[in-house]
Amino acid sequence: MEFSAKQLAEILNGETEGNPDVLVHKLAKIEEGVEGSLTFLANPQYTPYIYDTDASIVIVSSSFVAEKPVKATLIRVEDAYKGFATLLDYYNQIKSKKAGIEQPSFVAESATLGEEIYLGAFAYIGENAKIGNNVKIYPHCYIGDNVVIGDNTTLNSGVKIYSDCVIGSDCNIHSAVVIGGDGFGFAPNSANQYDKVAQIGNVIIEDHVEVGASSTIDRATLGSTIIRRGVKIDNLIQIAHNVEVGENTVIAAQTGIAGSTKIGKNCMIGGQVGIVGHLIIGDNVKIAAQSGIGSNLKDGEIVQGSPSFNIGEYKKSYVYFRKLPTLVDRIEKLENNGK
Amino acid sequence: MEFSAKQLAEILNGETEGNPDVLVHKLAKIEEGVEGSLTFLANPQYTPYIYDTDASIVIVSSSFVAEKPVKATLIRVEDAYKGFATLLDYYNQIKSKKAGIEQPSFVAESATLGEEIYLGAFAYIGENAKIGNNVKIYPHCYIGDNVVIGDNTTLNSGVKIYSDCVIGSDCNIHSAVVIGGDGFGFAPNSANQYDKVAQIGNVIIEDHVEVGASSTIDRATLGSTIIRRGVKIDNLIQIAHNVEVGENTVIAAQTGIAGSTKIGKNCMIGGQVGIVGHLIIGDNVKIAAQSGIGSNLKDGEIVQGSPSFNIGEYKKSYVYFRKLPTLVDRIEKLENNGK
Amino acid sequence: MEFSAKQLAEILNGETEGNPDVLVHKLAKIEEGVEGSLTFLANPQYTPYIYDTDASIVIVSSSFVAEKPVKATLIRVEDAYKGFATLLDYYNQIKSKKAGIEQPSFVAESATLGEEIYLGAFAYIGENAKIGNNVKIYPHCYIGDNVVIGDNTTLNSGVKIYSDCVIGSDCNIHSAVVIGGDGFGFAPNSANQYDKVAQIGNVIIEDHVEVGASSTIDRATLGSTIIRRGVKIDNLIQIAHNVEVGENTVIAAQTGIAGSTKIGKNCMIGGQVGIVGHLIIGDNVKIAAQSGIGSNLKDGEIVQGSPSFNIGEYKKSYVYFRKLPTLVDRIEKLENNGK
Repeated sequence: MEFSAKQLAEILNGETEGNPDVLVHKLAKIEEGVEGSLTFLANPQYTPYIYDTDASIVIVSSSFVAEKPVKATLIRVEDAYKGFATLLDYYNQIKSKKAGIEQPSFVAESATLGEEIYLGAFAYIGENAKIGNNVKIYPHCYIGDNVVIGDNTTLNSGVKIYSDCVIGSDCNIHSAVVIGGDGFGFAPNSANQYDKVAQIGNVIIEDHVEVGASSTIDRATLGSTIIRRGVKIDNLIQIAHNVEVGENTVIAAQTGIAGSTKIGKNCMIGGQVGIVGHLIIGDNVKIAAQSGIGSNLKDGEIVQGSPSFNIGEYKKSYVYFRKLPTLVDRIEKLENNGK
Repeated sequence: MEFSAKQLAEILNGETEGNPDVLVHKLAKIEEGVEGSLTFLANPQYTPYIYDTDASIVIVSSSFVAEKPVKATLIRVEDAYKGFATLLDYYNQIKSKKAGIEQPSFVAESATLGEEIYLGAFAYIGENAKIGNNVKIYPHCYIGDNVVIGDNTTLNSGVKIYSDCVIGSDCNIHSAVVIGGDGFGFAPNSANQYDKVAQIGNVIIEDHVEVGASSTIDRATLGSTIIRRGVKIDNLIQIAHNVEVGENTVIAAQTGIAGSTKIGKNCMIGGQVGIVGHLIIGDNVKIAAQSGIGSNLKDGEIVQGSPSFNIGEYKKSYVYFRKLPTLVDRIEKLENNGK
Repeated sequence: MEFSAKQLAEILNGETEGNPDVLVHKLAKIEEGVEGSLTFLANPQYTPYIYDTDASIVIVSSSFVAEKPVKATLIRVEDAYKGFATLLDYYNQIKSKKAGIEQPSFVAESATLGEEIYLGAFAYIGENAKIGNNVKIYPHCYIGDNVVIGDNTTLNSGVKIYSDCVIGSDCNIHSAVVIGGDGFGFAPNSANQYDKVAQIGNVIIEDHVEVGASSTIDRATLGSTIIRRGVKIDNLIQIAHNVEVGENTVIAAQTGIAGSTKIGKNCMIGGQVGIVGHLIIGDNVKIAAQSGIGSNLKDGEIVQGSPSFNIGEYKKSYVYFRKLPTLVDRIEKLENNGK
């Protein structure tokens, strides 16, 4: 695919500066730009590269003022980063054009399929499952009985969805994600062994949710584990039974949330965080990576540590933790009357 | 499915109080009970809900004394939680009735299949594999050559079992679990690179073991990685080559156990714990979440921290860690002779 | 398969001591050796076992001096561990002899397959994919469009490779690994929601790389996420978009590396380590398990802690962390003028 600066400026509602007919056929970082490539300048740190880049077109913010001559054609837009992101999306949509039903695939007779779907080979759709319009189901996906999947959702290769779960519209679920596995519930018995507590709830994922590769979201013991609209979940994350994650909360890789905890809206949770069960975490909470959360958090709290507390206080304590040997020397000196 | 209070009381060997003919067709939490639903009261914290719930039937412990009128029909049993768990199991068993061999599936000629099994479409069974009776193998499972699987075991969609591994009876292995991948063994060579050490052992999982979604259990370099009877493993857990986990030990999500470590019986290991290799962990040990275990632990030890030590001492030290800035102020005051 | 001590000595270029005609048909640890088994003695800790073992053959280093009579036939080689590893490899190669194309499998018409490949049932190969010679692709693997796979590489059951990624020669990718899933990139919008940033780069894995079960390596936003030659990645590891891992670096299980971080050569990274994004980690760096890396590291640094610092200093600080209650007592005593 080839685009001219003029065409791109039209898509972005921007203005060209330089040759409007120059053509690009690939994307590049500004420091790696070669002839025929399109790049962008958003971070001021990278400004020096614009004078030397061999990229043919650079998207810049309208506020950019060149201090030296620029060889490339510029496209000025309100926000260069967003402009570039828009083009990436556009490019991606043209590229991912999978459609039709490949064979062999398995669709239970009682299942219903929407229009314009892609069903990859070796995909499996169980009894009474309902698949929306424009859904893309890549090879090796497993859709259990009674599962419902909303319009425009993509399930990448190897997603496993147990029976009775509900996935919203415009979701993107990555490879090897497991949705609806049994919650980890066992009751000790008199023989010092464990009896399984049946897990008969489900998982509900609302619209516009992204779930990263190999994350696991367990079904509720009773009721539903709920991932609210707009939540973004990274890779290898564990979400236990009966958890609820509030709207537009973002969770980084390898974090785990134990059973029945309720997370608020617009939270930002770092990587490798652990949150114990049965907690209530407020809205707009920020949790630093590797923290361990053992008690409820109020709206807007920012915490670090395991167990976690206020991030500023944690950082202060940690400074002194590093200096502990010196502090001990000072105590010893005091004990020796300053000698 | 619909049940009357009378029917349920018979299953549970309990006594009804109120209308024995009232019907329920679904399960609910007590605070979310609606007409036609069955719920239970086990945690005294939820007692206030019993007077207002719209649930039609509530299972209560025989010791429960109502302080106000209760609208719902009660079923009194010895232990309300266990009673409810019994019903969940009953319900689950009726529901999961998969049977027969779906096509296309792949079964090597030399494999042997037990009676009454379920083999989902796209499941693969390798040479000389032996599958017991009443085994359920969901779609996309891979059973390598020479694998043995005991009676009544369920492999959910997408379980991968490498060659020569042995799985017991009455196990439940969740989606995307990998059993028998190579242990992580490499020997540095003279060129500062690593040569792979062949991993020719296997994994043995005994009876009544549950393994959560996306956990990985590596095969032994030599001999066997062993998961003893009754062990419960949560999601996204890593168990390295030649590890042994003792009977009825429970391990929470995202924990990792390095090579050749031996864990005792009836231990409780929290989430995101890391245990280094070649250790011996006793029986009845408890390890707090996110701890790092770097040395052997005796029977009954309870530890926290990274590296871990006695949990009571850890908590004390952590209290003072949080107060370190104040302690430094006190040292400074002493240095300034109290001023 | 049965081998005589004489045959093995020839393969290993070693010398037999005892009966050269004794036969072995399996491998064992020295403490578990039974008649007909082959074992080795490398770790001096295990020396006492050599006098009692029932193993028929023991590989020992040329420097070994018996202090008592040894029943088993010895094979003396320069390095007993390496000698044993050589035999394991040999045994493994004889064993894993999979070949041919099983049905049903799916190969896009535009894909090209090398010679002598194994393609398991239910494997999927997308448009324009290029598969090298002697490649083994086990059942349920997904090879996206335009993917390139070098010679002699093995993809175990259930590996998922998104479109446009490149895998080198002589690699070993374990079950449920996901390569090329979208990087975790979202831009907040004015409605306090997140817009997805399209991820149109790819993943490049060079030669002789091993990736453990269920690890995830995300595609670059732009450009490539790169795993250099000889890197060894354990299980359940997260490698984010645009990361680069240098040659022969070894990473233990459950570690996570955030976006755009560049790791040097010959590093050793422990398990459950977290490394934040946009860092530069030098060559020959060692990072202790469970550490959190928040800033750049120079060549050869050895660190521990979260956030991490020099490992020796960390250990000292941690000793005093454990003694904090005592230190507080000492401060109190000073405040009370020594009483």
